[in-house]
Amino acid sequence: MGDERKSVARQGPLSGITVLDFSRVLAGPYCTMVLADLGARVIKVEKFGTGDDTRAFGPFVGSESAYFMCFNRHKESIVLDVKSPRDRELLECLLDTCDVVVENFRPGVMDRLGYGPERLAKTHPHIIYASISGFGHSGPMTDLPGYDMVVQAMGGVMSLTGWPGGPPARVGTSFGDLGAALFAAVGIVSALFSRTRDAQGTRVDIGMLDCQAALMETALARYDVEGRIPTRTGDSHPSLAPFETFAASDERFVIAAGNDTLFMLMADALDSPRLALDPRFVTNDLRVHNRAALVEAIEAVTRTMPVTHWIDRLNEAGVPCAPINTIDRLFSHPQLLSRNMVIQVQGQGDRAVRTAGNPIKMGGYADFDPAVPLRAPALNQHREAILHELMAGVGAYAVAPVGGEQAGPKSPVSVDTQAA
Amino acid sequence: MGDERKSVARQGPLSGITVLDFSRVLAGPYCTMVLADLGARVIKVEKFGTGDDTRAFGPFVGSESAYFMCFNRHKESIVLDVKSPRDRELLECLLDTCDVVVENFRPGVMDRLGYGPERLAKTHPHIIYASISGFGHSGPMTDLPGYDMVVQAMGGVMSLTGWPGGPPARVGTSFGDLGAALFAAVGIVSALFSRTRDAQGTRVDIGMLDCQAALMETALARYDVEGRIPTRTGDSHPSLAPFETFAASDERFVIAAGNDTLFMLMADALDSPRLALDPRFVTNDLRVHNRAALVEAIEAVTRTMPVTHWIDRLNEAGVPCAPINTIDRLFSHPQLLSRNMVIQVQGQGDRAVRTAGNPIKMGGYADFDPAVPLRAPALNQHREAILHELMAGVGAYAVAPVGGEQAGPKSPVSVDTQAA
Repeated sequence: MGDERKSVARQGPLSGITVLDFSRVLAGPYCTMVLADLGARVIKVEKFGTGDDTRAFGPFVGSESAYFMCFNRHKESIVLDVKSPRDRELLECLLDTCDVVVENFRPGVMDRLGYGPERLAKTHPHIIYASISGFGHSGPMTDLPGYDMVVQAMGGVMSLTGWPGGPPARVGTSFGDLGAALFAAVGIVSALFSRTRDAQGTRVDIGMLDCQAALMETALARYDVEGRIPTRTGDSHPSLAPFETFAASDERFVIAAGNDTLFMLMADALDSPRLALDPRFVTNDLRVHNRAALVEAIEAVTRTMPVTHWIDRLNEAGVPCAPINTIDRLFSHPQLLSRNMVIQVQGQGDRAVRTAGNPIKMGGYADFDPAVPLRAPALNQHREAILHELMAGVGAYAVAPVGGEQAGPKSPVSVDTQAA
Repeated sequence: MGDERKSVARQGPLSGITVLDFSRVLAGPYCTMVLADLGARVIKVEKFGTGDDTRAFGPFVGSESAYFMCFNRHKESIVLDVKSPRDRELLECLLDTCDVVVENFRPGVMDRLGYGPERLAKTHPHIIYASISGFGHSGPMTDLPGYDMVVQAMGGVMSLTGWPGGPPARVGTSFGDLGAALFAAVGIVSALFSRTRDAQGTRVDIGMLDCQAALMETALARYDVEGRIPTRTGDSHPSLAPFETFAASDERFVIAAGNDTLFMLMADALDSPRLALDPRFVTNDLRVHNRAALVEAIEAVTRTMPVTHWIDRLNEAGVPCAPINTIDRLFSHPQLLSRNMVIQVQGQGDRAVRTAGNPIKMGGYADFDPAVPLRAPALNQHREAILHELMAGVGAYAVAPVGGEQAGPKSPVSVDTQAA
């Protein structure tokens, strides 16, 4: 059992923290993946029969979902039937020993199951109870279902993404889920920090729509100041120029010269020093105003040579630039490889699948080894091990730092938990 | 001086934490804005003369930048000339009393100034030192400049955003900066938590490109399993259907029926129960495979009535759906207003500007009052107050919890800091 656990958990700043994770699909599991990447032990509570919905989402490796593997790496799985008195008893034991509860059901579901935030605040005041929902647990739309696509549409990012005059585009990754997942992780860890001072758990209530609004950058302020509705800007930044794609002789690529100094360096790197002397282009505001003329002037030069030529020249000059990489190129990207950002996940079968690693690089903690796949759990895989631990009576996994290697004093709260 | 401070800081889980913030433009300031929203005191160290570059970015309210106001609300500003012995002395005092340093210069800049992470790890081991850079502080591309547009291009999201067959589009908000900012915030707060156990600061090294890869969701895994390069999918989700926009009689809107149950409810809500019986559409995988036929069948119905009609019907049935809101509609959105997500920021002038509030809703801490603008600092505004505090000799702002209302024991580290 101990070995089983060590194979799942890892060292990190959150070592010793146990997350009881009722969430499924994406926002919740991505949030708890981030916590697990930082060393938290995550026990994934799954529903009887099918478990997390994403176990049925493609792509599949054999009969197993690679989608599921990506976001549930190094978690443990237990199936609990909350209608059975036996499993309810087990769940109480888990609540006694965990530090964090995460759920992303619609508001009210956890209350109806008997594990809502108000009840747990009374019976388990040490717990940090985090909910991620479409609209949050208050307000007139709280009961409505929210999905990534819903909040991308409602929160404004689709109105800003795509081409001017064209239809609104979805951000090509689940910006609605992932944004909420990261704000939730910030909230949860902040609450863990705060708990070291007052020994109190708290409630973290994350609405995906709220997060979308928070991620609109300056769009609200621009509308408020200028009175013009911000629109899709295609491949350029609305308030910086040149900060967009340009045609080379083979492909398009990005130049992002966001201030006057970089613009001058760019002009030199393109063997076009006159660009920097042109009165239409001497400040960023002028360049934004005269963007069409600027793009034409730059492309007159860049169309003469391939992307690699210009990237080399601009890099030498210290001007931010980039090829527009498709996903296949990430697997051989020298910087991502050197930063251990391409790792492997694996289910119960033999074949590992490559996915992205942990981008939070912290002193004193090793990255995941790209050569060693992280395991995603089979449905209910850890039930027996967890029962053994609970039977041992000392709440071992909540008391002992995971793996037992953690130095330093325990927080007072963990000790209280141990005593409970 | 005390009043001045109270007007800036707020209560939150990070109350009592002081962040010395050398960052500018977006990723760093957004990260420290999130920390300030959670109660941390953020002292923004700005360069002589012009301060943060974004003080010169539009839109402007009078002579002040609304861009700057959005991300620097309730921070303090001090200008330090690190070439002057006097200001270097002052900086040492600030380092003695702060908990977190955040910077987003290119790797090496802080070292050359004499305040690099290795030096501070020796002289100020209690400090959590967070860097946000384009590519992180290691690897073959570490010295290259990174901007949002660069990492959006290099990290893959532009290859996934926009319309199939069309050019790659930028995500309409600075996904590269904001993603890195949030991962940095998770890392910093995790390090604060960890420090309560071992009394040690640490290093947090965030590369924007790494964060982009981490936010590619399942794109890497899909390529690895299926061997096909994931492409732009316009307004739909690549592995869910129906999960896209549909034409009503007036505008387009979103239906996101991501599982079989929701699909059946949708069919009923559209008065089209036969859709759910069609063998082409009975599972999600079939619906993805037959997406074109599915869209045609749904639009045959939805084109007959306006968006509001269908949104009402679908909401009644519990099917996720949404209008595609432009930014102007957020200001009157009932859910965002009820969640205090539209707040005001203000510079030195009379006019406040509306922007998004804090989406991390936590028990025990009040939201920002939408009626009371949060102040963004004038350049060097808080120098005198900070000098007064330091002269008082007790490092008041680092010792006393901000505002003095915070209950509960201090962490051992904060006490050590006090003694230093």
